[in-house]
Amino acid sequence: MRPYYRKLTTKTEKSMKKVRAAIVGYGNIGHYVLQALQAAPDFEVAGVVRRAGAENRPAELNEYPVVKDIKELNDVDVAILCTPTRSVEKYAKEILALGIHTVDSFDIHTGIADLRRTLDAEAKAHQAVSIISAGWDPGSDSVVRTLLEAIAPKGITYTNFGPGMSMGHTVAVKAVEGVKAALSMTIPTGTGIHRRMVYIELEEGYDFDQVAAAIKADPYFVNDETHVKLVPSVDALLDMGHGVNLTRKGVSGKTQNQLFEFNMRINNPALTAQVLVCVARAAMRQQPGCYTMIEIPVIDLLPGEREEWISHLV
Amino acid sequence: MRPYYRKLTTKTEKSMKKVRAAIVGYGNIGHYVLQALQAAPDFEVAGVVRRAGAENRPAELNEYPVVKDIKELNDVDVAILCTPTRSVEKYAKEILALGIHTVDSFDIHTGIADLRRTLDAEAKAHQAVSIISAGWDPGSDSVVRTLLEAIAPKGITYTNFGPGMSMGHTVAVKAVEGVKAALSMTIPTGTGIHRRMVYIELEEGYDFDQVAAAIKADPYFVNDETHVKLVPSVDALLDMGHGVNLTRKGVSGKTQNQLFEFNMRINNPALTAQVLVCVARAAMRQQPGCYTMIEIPVIDLLPGEREEWISHLV
Repeated sequence: MRPYYRKLTTKTEKSMKKVRAAIVGYGNIGHYVLQALQAAPDFEVAGVVRRAGAENRPAELNEYPVVKDIKELNDVDVAILCTPTRSVEKYAKEILALGIHTVDSFDIHTGIADLRRTLDAEAKAHQAVSIISAGWDPGSDSVVRTLLEAIAPKGITYTNFGPGMSMGHTVAVKAVEGVKAALSMTIPTGTGIHRRMVYIELEEGYDFDQVAAAIKADPYFVNDETHVKLVPSVDALLDMGHGVNLTRKGVSGKTQNQLFEFNMRINNPALTAQVLVCVARAAMRQQPGCYTMIEIPVIDLLPGEREEWISHLV
Repeated sequence: MRPYYRKLTTKTEKSMKKVRAAIVGYGNIGHYVLQALQAAPDFEVAGVVRRAGAENRPAELNEYPVVKDIKELNDVDVAILCTPTRSVEKYAKEILALGIHTVDSFDIHTGIADLRRTLDAEAKAHQAVSIISAGWDPGSDSVVRTLLEAIAPKGITYTNFGPGMSMGHTVAVKAVEGVKAALSMTIPTGTGIHRRMVYIELEEGYDFDQVAAAIKADPYFVNDETHVKLVPSVDALLDMGHGVNLTRKGVSGKTQNQLFEFNMRINNPALTAQVLVCVARAAMRQQPGCYTMIEIPVIDLLPGEREEWISHLV
């Protein structure tokens, strides 16, 4: 019944050695990870690794080492991988081999168990820790799903996404011939079913109906209710807000109709970045190996004194 | 985007040795714990410990040993304490000293850190595990609060309870002179503020206005908006449903206005009992010591194969 306020930084925390984190990849997520590291009381930025190195570095990186290879940075405790999902395995292996912890937000659901097995061997071989698939879904949503599965073991969980931009679907639309610019919005219609609202600009000389038909026939869209709209400016529609409505109706023991719901309305890359920074902290507290977020005690995501958090949050 | 279905029991699980749990205290919660143990694939009931022993045992206990002292039961792995909150420490110490794990739903928020310290020493001394304050609040709500604190580190969390019966407040009303029967309902009015709706029957010869004034002056009610109503039958109003609306508006990194909400509408003792059974399972997987739920990986709450759950829930 008490509201829970974040305690002031404790003495212990102030005198603690800070965790030195490297940002690997400096796109949208990397940018937000920098902000989350700057806002965290217990981290310092060891540097940023990007393909271009220090060339044309954005102004906000002026005070940090910006390099092409993580080996050029000093005393890195943990690398926060902000690369495309498909390069996560490659980077994670290389960096774990240096004995540096890694965290990522690998988001191909069907590949998670395999990635965990591969990186677990690599991490253990080099006394390092890897925490994978740590964004909001997979990630924080997975923790909620697991908790609900436990406390109402029979029943169905539905994860409804949106309204919000789907990166994967947007990329798929852009690959269709005749599409000049695109945005695919995910609209939840309940029970885990989603409508796709696709907004496009056309290349000159293309027929809208034909392009729209091609989009609807794409594997990304063929099974969903998809609407394609021609707009004068896709850019004018872009917004990084996203949402989740996760529901479970289940049975606790032999008692039916236990109802649970988790909702979020969030800035997508900002939340992903904050989760990455939390698990970078948690990586410092695990035994060598590879973990998903549901294998990590939630208290390990927080800075400072355990006993203080227990008094305030439990 | 997939709905998540509970997998069928795996071969490994079928051939696994079952966890033998004792129910200590057989009131309302104990009754629901029995049901949750019967429904769990990986538990067997070692027996029930109650003051009356086997005397006047309820029919549903006929197939189980019912004793006055846990020492009379064989091969108990974990004791599920379903006693009043104020006797938890005494029972937990005695049972941990036998090298048996304990779990409880101790719910005096201000006493949790102390209880954890006391039982931690006791558990470690006897190579046992104790998981405390494992109901829904404190308990599963605490896990959600901790997760939200981590992923939006600045901001305010409000836990709104109800509508539902408050056991503590109901007991306080019953202690007021002239009250024959009572029910205190907790009604959330937002931002962690609650209205108390108190329904009473009067003893003969008492004045309603005087009794109502005495209730409102009680320390349990003096700071809350409290309404007292005279009703012909309190019993006719009793319902064990309860609810939670937990909200957080916070900052991820430097991005404001991240919005989160967790809602439940549940049978109160059934959920408490299911959480207790989950943590009894988790107790088998921890190092000796005392833990709150936020210190336990959520995957440890689930039966069966870790990799299967990771594929399905992450």
